[in-house]
Amino acid sequence: MKKGPIKGKQGYEVNVDIAFKDINPEDYGILVISGGKGPEKMRLDENALEITRHFFKENKPVAAICHGPQVLVSAGVIKGRKATCWPGIKDDIIAAGALYEDKEVVIDGNFVSSRSPADLHAFGREMIKLLK
Amino acid sequence: MKKGPIKGKQGYEVNVDIAFKDINPEDYGILVISGGKGPEKMRLDENALEITRHFFKENKPVAAICHGPQVLVSAGVIKGRKATCWPGIKDDIIAAGALYEDKEVVIDGNFVSSRSPADLHAFGREMIKLLK
Repeated sequence: MKKGPIKGKQGYEVNVDIAFKDINPEDYGILVISGGKGPEKMRLDENALEITRHFFKENKPVAAICHGPQVLVSAGVIKGRKATCWPGIKDDIIAAGALYEDKEVVIDGNFVSSRSPADLHAFGREMIKLLK
Repeated sequence: MKKGPIKGKQGYEVNVDIAFKDINPEDYGILVISGGKGPEKMRLDENALEITRHFFKENKPVAAICHGPQVLVSAGVIKGRKATCWPGIKDDIIAAGALYEDKEVVIDGNFVSSRSPADLHAFGREMIKLLK
């Protein structure tokens, strides 16, 4: 994972302003893990996993949607946590010890998760609440 | 999952001649689970999981590549089995109890698995051996 412009599936381009390896997680107030095909790559980056562990260890806000919880499985932080995810990976988070719920948004302390883009309203609502 | 023509990512079209629900697994000698985005859908089909369980229960040949082992996780048959898979899902099969190995092909009795399209030669070679 490196700096520079990346293009999404729908053609939108965003400029990545920092690589995982250069991030000091102390400087950030929330971790938001989006879905799609990205999490299968992010979870292979040890720096991304270390950032994730920092947020859970410090009980700082974390929000993950769709395939985002794959990163939490690899970081070893989902066991015993109430969570939801994209239906196609629910058996994976269950195998990793998550307490799976089939709801538009699942709240477990400072950790919120949602299933799919259709849940984005509820996901955003609960994510913003974590920052208040 | 239903009968009829389907088109793959590269534009190739194949005709699906039978749906999972109409399959009698007794009629088949090997189960081959391909990769890509399909396994995340197949694993949600209870008929596909039942077919998979039949092959493991009867110790009949099974071959899975890339994301294919996701189906085995959902079928509950990968625990204690030597296996490999697409790197992005290795932590999932480990969480489900697989004995993961990072090799082009892993053989565990009548079950063979491979990581990616780059392993197809070894995968095909060992899969064919199961039928001899």
